[in-house]
Amino acid sequence: MDIISRYKELYEVVALAAGSNITLLLKQVKQFRPKIVSVQGPIDKATFRQEIQSCNCELVTGQEGLLQAAKYPEADLVVSAISGASGLIPTYEAVVSGKDIALANKETLVMAGKIIKQKAQEKGVQILPIDSEHSAIFQCLMGNDHQEIKRLLLTASGGPFFFTRREEFCNISYQKALEHPTWSMGEKVSLDSATLMNKALEVIEAKWLFDLPIEKIEVIIHPESIVHSMVEFCDGNILALLSVPDMRLPILYALSYPTRIPLDLPSLDLPRMKSLNFYASDTKKFPCLQLGYQAIRQGETMPAVLNAANEVALKAFKQGLIGFSDIPIIIEKTLNCHQPAPLREIEDALWADRWARKQTRDIIGRFV
Amino acid sequence: MDIISRYKELYEVVALAAGSNITLLLKQVKQFRPKIVSVQGPIDKATFRQEIQSCNCELVTGQEGLLQAAKYPEADLVVSAISGASGLIPTYEAVVSGKDIALANKETLVMAGKIIKQKAQEKGVQILPIDSEHSAIFQCLMGNDHQEIKRLLLTASGGPFFFTRREEFCNISYQKALEHPTWSMGEKVSLDSATLMNKALEVIEAKWLFDLPIEKIEVIIHPESIVHSMVEFCDGNILALLSVPDMRLPILYALSYPTRIPLDLPSLDLPRMKSLNFYASDTKKFPCLQLGYQAIRQGETMPAVLNAANEVALKAFKQGLIGFSDIPIIIEKTLNCHQPAPLREIEDALWADRWARKQTRDIIGRFV
Repeated sequence: MDIISRYKELYEVVALAAGSNITLLLKQVKQFRPKIVSVQGPIDKATFRQEIQSCNCELVTGQEGLLQAAKYPEADLVVSAISGASGLIPTYEAVVSGKDIALANKETLVMAGKIIKQKAQEKGVQILPIDSEHSAIFQCLMGNDHQEIKRLLLTASGGPFFFTRREEFCNISYQKALEHPTWSMGEKVSLDSATLMNKALEVIEAKWLFDLPIEKIEVIIHPESIVHSMVEFCDGNILALLSVPDMRLPILYALSYPTRIPLDLPSLDLPRMKSLNFYASDTKKFPCLQLGYQAIRQGETMPAVLNAANEVALKAFKQGLIGFSDIPIIIEKTLNCHQPAPLREIEDALWADRWARKQTRDIIGRFV
Repeated sequence: MDIISRYKELYEVVALAAGSNITLLLKQVKQFRPKIVSVQGPIDKATFRQEIQSCNCELVTGQEGLLQAAKYPEADLVVSAISGASGLIPTYEAVVSGKDIALANKETLVMAGKIIKQKAQEKGVQILPIDSEHSAIFQCLMGNDHQEIKRLLLTASGGPFFFTRREEFCNISYQKALEHPTWSMGEKVSLDSATLMNKALEVIEAKWLFDLPIEKIEVIIHPESIVHSMVEFCDGNILALLSVPDMRLPILYALSYPTRIPLDLPSLDLPRMKSLNFYASDTKKFPCLQLGYQAIRQGETMPAVLNAANEVALKAFKQGLIGFSDIPIIIEKTLNCHQPAPLREIEDALWADRWARKQTRDIIGRFV
């Protein structure tokens, strides 16, 4: 919203979708004047409608309302930024409606990459990454031939525990796991960064976005979060994208693509940073990363199961039912129970998601 | 030559030009079978011709011979890699003959950038950089709009004395000045790296290659020579090119452009490097950098004077006539004596070069 408020002459918000932060939503409706607004959380409709009565804005609720917002006829582009598996169907429906997608919800491609990419191609829809890593790769690939890619190097900050000894992982509290060292993000992404599951999901997302075999996608730890990712080409040259860690940059790029628009933020001051550091990723300490590779290698419904098992395990961790180091154990147990089924339609991903949630809850029930 | 020997089916050497290393030249003639070979240094023509008699290769000598090689009709592309001002005329003549240029000789653009660029445009000639910094920028700009450039960040290793205290500069010997920390290069470039004049020349080269105002070109010290340069765009995103410091990479890119060809060298191992460091450049300690900006701001014949004064000062330093810290003093004195004259034809650059050499020698004569 900050980006759009800077370029009012270029962008217009026609639809807004919110979860449960009604106070912020009201402020945004009054400022951006969308034609439709969708709310998922509990809401006093009468009061809300009264508050926005001068705005000529329709209030819709529930899954049906969310889809109305996602498919709103006047929209050219949908910013898909719902957190977790809930983002899949609205994004899919936006693609089916022929809208370009600025994609922040990585679960869409993790759960149903094959289907989404097929549908996007069929509808002539562009999927523009908002994740800083994928935006970086997307920018590094501009003007370069996909055939010449040797490997993608996805950078990971390593999260708050990269330098913590593995033996201490069992003592990590929920609050500690939320404290991301470089990015200010929502709860789900912060937790996923702590386990490196976030990077596992991004590896799968990259596979679909850039249509590459998983063997060409590597993860490298870079605690400063200045190099957002890199592409190595067949001739040994590596293009890297650097910037201050501020989500407004990849968001603006997804909106302004294929051009760039001046953004008045402080430049990255490399001499002030002094040094950028890189480490090999550690799959022993962070098994979630390995589980991600395993799931996408098995393919079909397996990544959707990975994602659902992760969401359920995180919830159990939040509730204090399991410890931080139990998260990958629970997910692996769920994966091991799953026989990948063909991913033919979007419903297949939803089925796998439901199956995995129940299975993971059962495993946690037996575990605690 | 190593690159060409790896891709015999793609490239053919039709002309070779050498200075005085006859032993190496003979080996190259026998291996690459050029149709013409030019020698500048002293040579026993009869013996040489006998040595290559089975090669069906014509020997030419002197400036006239060098130009014959530079304009050789069958050549599509000329790799211009003569060191110093001597590279100007052969490169100019190759451009006039309509040949694409793979440019390692930065003096060509420093001395006569305006003329060379005009002529290249007129003849539809591509100038492809071989300097690692300029190749990096060239690659970062692929698929991006020149209008969207905020600034170029040319990286400099800082040379062998970046961490030496300024007070110790007067004691730096010729041998010490040749010891470049990261690149293995010829004598002239190694010395220029020690004074940072190399970077000053590269700033001027970048100005002409990428057609940018000098204010948009900055220098940043990066001792590891892994990031070869960067481009910051108007939206705050920075593209950087990284690789192992090996000149074969930019050479291959200039030859293979606009495609990339697989090169079987070890990949850059960033976790093994651990950290990449950056520092602001220090023009107090390295006044040559500032002299470069001053010369290109004044423009016209001034950069040619800068270059010639530098070459003469380096020679005097080699001969022990002046100390390391006298080099920028001598150059500055020469610049201060020069009234920039319009650069209309290539002869104007040659005139400025001759004028400056005499002037610098006079200044050194009075100085010692």
